[in-house]
Amino acid sequence: MALTEFSLIERYFSRPAAQRDPDVVLGIGDDAALLHVPEGMELAVATDTLAEGVHFPLHTKPEDIGHKALAANLSDMAAMGAEPRWATLALTLPHADKSWLAAFSAGFFALAAEYRIQLIGGDTTRGPLSITVQILGLVPAGMALRRSGAHAGDLIYVTGTLGDAGLGLRVLQQPIELSAGHAAHVMQRLNRPQPRVAEGIALRGIASAAIDISDGLGADLGHILQASGTGARINMAALPLSAAVNSYVNHSGDWHTPLCAGDDYELCFTVPAQKRPALLDALKSSASGCTHIGVIEAAPGLRCISASGALITPRAGGYQHFSANE
Amino acid sequence: MALTEFSLIERYFSRPAAQRDPDVVLGIGDDAALLHVPEGMELAVATDTLAEGVHFPLHTKPEDIGHKALAANLSDMAAMGAEPRWATLALTLPHADKSWLAAFSAGFFALAAEYRIQLIGGDTTRGPLSITVQILGLVPAGMALRRSGAHAGDLIYVTGTLGDAGLGLRVLQQPIELSAGHAAHVMQRLNRPQPRVAEGIALRGIASAAIDISDGLGADLGHILQASGTGARINMAALPLSAAVNSYVNHSGDWHTPLCAGDDYELCFTVPAQKRPALLDALKSSASGCTHIGVIEAAPGLRCISASGALITPRAGGYQHFSANE
Repeated sequence: MALTEFSLIERYFSRPAAQRDPDVVLGIGDDAALLHVPEGMELAVATDTLAEGVHFPLHTKPEDIGHKALAANLSDMAAMGAEPRWATLALTLPHADKSWLAAFSAGFFALAAEYRIQLIGGDTTRGPLSITVQILGLVPAGMALRRSGAHAGDLIYVTGTLGDAGLGLRVLQQPIELSAGHAAHVMQRLNRPQPRVAEGIALRGIASAAIDISDGLGADLGHILQASGTGARINMAALPLSAAVNSYVNHSGDWHTPLCAGDDYELCFTVPAQKRPALLDALKSSASGCTHIGVIEAAPGLRCISASGALITPRAGGYQHFSANE
Repeated sequence: MALTEFSLIERYFSRPAAQRDPDVVLGIGDDAALLHVPEGMELAVATDTLAEGVHFPLHTKPEDIGHKALAANLSDMAAMGAEPRWATLALTLPHADKSWLAAFSAGFFALAAEYRIQLIGGDTTRGPLSITVQILGLVPAGMALRRSGAHAGDLIYVTGTLGDAGLGLRVLQQPIELSAGHAAHVMQRLNRPQPRVAEGIALRGIASAAIDISDGLGADLGHILQASGTGARINMAALPLSAAVNSYVNHSGDWHTPLCAGDDYELCFTVPAQKRPALLDALKSSASGCTHIGVIEAAPGLRCISASGALITPRAGGYQHFSANE
């Protein structure tokens, strides 16, 4: 039987939605999908590509790739305080491997079902493995969280813990002594990031600026500082670390991992001091919680203060796909 | 100077819009763009990936790739009768080649300016060359052209001419005797397809079904027939051919090229017979014009009738990225 481009899409990606979405006027299967955007809402649009060997290590399980491709995009919605609603998937594959497709789509749709995301379109192409997801979400007009709203004196927070995914990647690349439990934790964090969608929505009207940590705290907080025209001071002793990363940092002294490694998909956000009570209330039932790690300052630049009071300058940037030497 | 992922995007893709778009609440440079969708409009969403060696030949000029990546997506909007408005660009590149990026973005933005498309987001990744564009457009609620509305008796039309891009691709692959003028014409059609956006919009309320011809007339009309639960009869003598393709077909007898080769990005659409005068009026100032090539029939299947009255069955499908042997 011919397994054409079209039957591929149909077989693996044209699932009936878990429940009918009245705002999807026309779903997969035409030249475009048609959506209804409710009045008073703004449409949030983001896109992220995951390429093998760049965004996920070789031999990553296809379920994990499917999960992560969507999770990275959901994280962008979280960073805007938007509710993710619809996705398109552009999938480039070296060959039409049925078991790979079945596993990839299982990972993708499990996360989609959790957030009630409907896949509304896609394209499959033969080529080196690459996945581009575009995510569409809704946010009440004027309520989106931006990078540009931080002011001197605002408190800096992060959700969850930092450096887990980075440590997971290190474990794959070099022998690191880690207990089995710690190794399992960091691999789960690397392969199955949990986007902080509920937290992003809860931060509407509270956070003055927000971003998701995909390239590392240093780089991503740097984007807030640049967009807001401010600087910041980070208290490194306050960085929230899992037991695995805490143990690793204590042994290795490698602060670069929690400070600069990417892929955690936590949120970094700023809150005016007087809104701290509202913040604690808004996130009191959050699974990730949040941790106060520093303060926005008027002077440009990012200053990281160690437990002993020393000033540490993080290595430039986080993960950069194109390096300085080109 | 560090040419990072972010400065790359900024340098080549963060152009100020030709004119301010009041519906772009927030453009490039945050975790997501924010758009306002006017009341009474539906949002049309499509995505297309172009991969080197699959959708464009090796050594295609980067200006042409930039043009074609956007044109293929604009063509999806045309097929829906939607007005394209915004695009995101996910670009995977083997290395950050400045002259390539300058030329690619020149081709992309020249076409974007022609249609007043604003680039609202993107992602750049290191890897084998691949371009995924997502296009967002607007269409008055209920007015979109779908694949599913054709009825027996409806007349079948195509815009422009068929087989030019396919002949252009053949010229690159094997020696074909073609005059310099004909060769230039088919290469222009292959590398610089003109999406039929104005024609798609003009067909609102007139066409009963529509699709764009990216995979070949046989395959794409086949999608209309399948979605509409009908068949069709095509009069091959009526197929609109350029002088180049006409001369080639007369010499070679190769009807497969106009009938099944893809990449022309013309529209194929159906019109109830009583709306023929409205159609001719709607497209009277169209650059591409349109040609009546056949009729929708109740019996399933596509029947192609040659000039001598013989029944010709086109080879299965048009361009399929995954073949029957996998």
